[in-house]
Amino acid sequence: MTIEIVSEARSHGGRQLVVKHASSATGTDMTFSIFLPPQVERGALLPVVWYLSGLTCTHANVTEKGEYRAACAQHGLIFVAPDTSPRGEGVSDDSEYDLGQGAGFYVDATQEPWGQSFRMWTYVSEELPALVTAEFPADLARQAITGHSMGGHGALTVALRHPGRFRSVSAFAPIVAPSEVPWGQKALRAYLGEDRAEWRRHDAVALIEDGARVPELLVDVGDADPFLRQELRPELLERACADAGIPLTLRLQPGYDHSYYFISTLMADHLRWHAERLG
Amino acid sequence: MTIEIVSEARSHGGRQLVVKHASSATGTDMTFSIFLPPQVERGALLPVVWYLSGLTCTHANVTEKGEYRAACAQHGLIFVAPDTSPRGEGVSDDSEYDLGQGAGFYVDATQEPWGQSFRMWTYVSEELPALVTAEFPADLARQAITGHSMGGHGALTVALRHPGRFRSVSAFAPIVAPSEVPWGQKALRAYLGEDRAEWRRHDAVALIEDGARVPELLVDVGDADPFLRQELRPELLERACADAGIPLTLRLQPGYDHSYYFISTLMADHLRWHAERLG
Repeated sequence: MTIEIVSEARSHGGRQLVVKHASSATGTDMTFSIFLPPQVERGALLPVVWYLSGLTCTHANVTEKGEYRAACAQHGLIFVAPDTSPRGEGVSDDSEYDLGQGAGFYVDATQEPWGQSFRMWTYVSEELPALVTAEFPADLARQAITGHSMGGHGALTVALRHPGRFRSVSAFAPIVAPSEVPWGQKALRAYLGEDRAEWRRHDAVALIEDGARVPELLVDVGDADPFLRQELRPELLERACADAGIPLTLRLQPGYDHSYYFISTLMADHLRWHAERLG
Repeated sequence: MTIEIVSEARSHGGRQLVVKHASSATGTDMTFSIFLPPQVERGALLPVVWYLSGLTCTHANVTEKGEYRAACAQHGLIFVAPDTSPRGEGVSDDSEYDLGQGAGFYVDATQEPWGQSFRMWTYVSEELPALVTAEFPADLARQAITGHSMGGHGALTVALRHPGRFRSVSAFAPIVAPSEVPWGQKALRAYLGEDRAEWRRHDAVALIEDGARVPELLVDVGDADPFLRQELRPELLERACADAGIPLTLRLQPGYDHSYYFISTLMADHLRWHAERLG
């Protein structure tokens, strides 16, 4: 695999890179950002935090607005933010924001016209970790995963289906039960077809009901988030975790919405929490 | 004066607003952002930091990428970021990025076609402070000013020409001697005409040479800033401050460029420095 460094800037004592590469999973070029904290200069492998973004986002949103670099520099964390779908003129798309480019939902699509390139499950859970390990000093024995909204869904499902891979899992305003909410139903139907057994494999609440486990979860949601009641429904995760005995720290943050003003407020706290578990 | 709240979001325990209002200085609508830290809930007047932005920027760049809210919440600082020029279809513009809309250079233009609306000096030094005091709990007895690049030029010149107004003055990669560098010469000639005596009133180094004073200065510049040698020339400020006896802390930051990756790295440190002086 070869990578192209699209941009590089010194920030918070480390280096913020944007990287492009040809993806075998999607058959397209893919772009991600990676922050290398100052500790990489010492030559050791460092723990890595994967951040999966929400609808309409590219790698750039969290990279510009996420306010993660100070905390990553403090704790010695590599921070990787992939795109949310394949992109480009030859890639299928939809006229609405919640399907197609910018809305990959972290699944491997089986339905047309998506199946050829919308393979974000394979991309984020297999191809990207292999590439990052090959090119950067990331210690895959010390991984954490988090994400926002659709990316919170991605973080939860990737973690639940890879037991033992992540030392810690958190999410900002995640979609926890896509099978049960409009955003998720639209996307899962379009990408995976009508077989609801397939949907359950991409639904955090259903995965927990079906026996998948993580050691614990940290989830923040704003109580002024306009998607709270219809799309996010954290109470479904709360019930599933209670039934399964998964320790869940669910915090309703008063007055916060769905934006990066919310995420950036909690980012340092999530990274501190992950750092404690990454050692 | 009436203001329109364009957007409001809870962030870092406070509120990030974007505000629009009809400006008497420019004859146009103007937009600025203001962060109100959590301490405003206690009802007291709070110190205010003015942040003037650089070429091509609106209020949005620092609002999204500046990473100032955590430090403002910690220290109880109001943070105001105006636009860099009047804007709109009826407003004069230039085909290049360094003149016209997005490039007001914090002067009151006297030359056509700029003189009618490009009155950013009056806007940032008179109209905006009056409006902010009227509408928000800003304590004008405790003001600080800072800025980036063209906005660093603005911060330095506004402070030098209003002795006693600001308790502290800092800048990120400022243009310190616009009379002597291409960006500044182009803008000052276009906005003010050929009279170099007028230029000196908008040139921090010239103002210091002509007797203007501030108690001290904090300036950071990246040593990988591509504009360092031709446009910024911090050595001219260093010499003027040395000759005038102004204590200048000038820090060349190794590896940093001209971007918000640089600014956001130093932002918390500047705000801590200002907070110490704002009491």
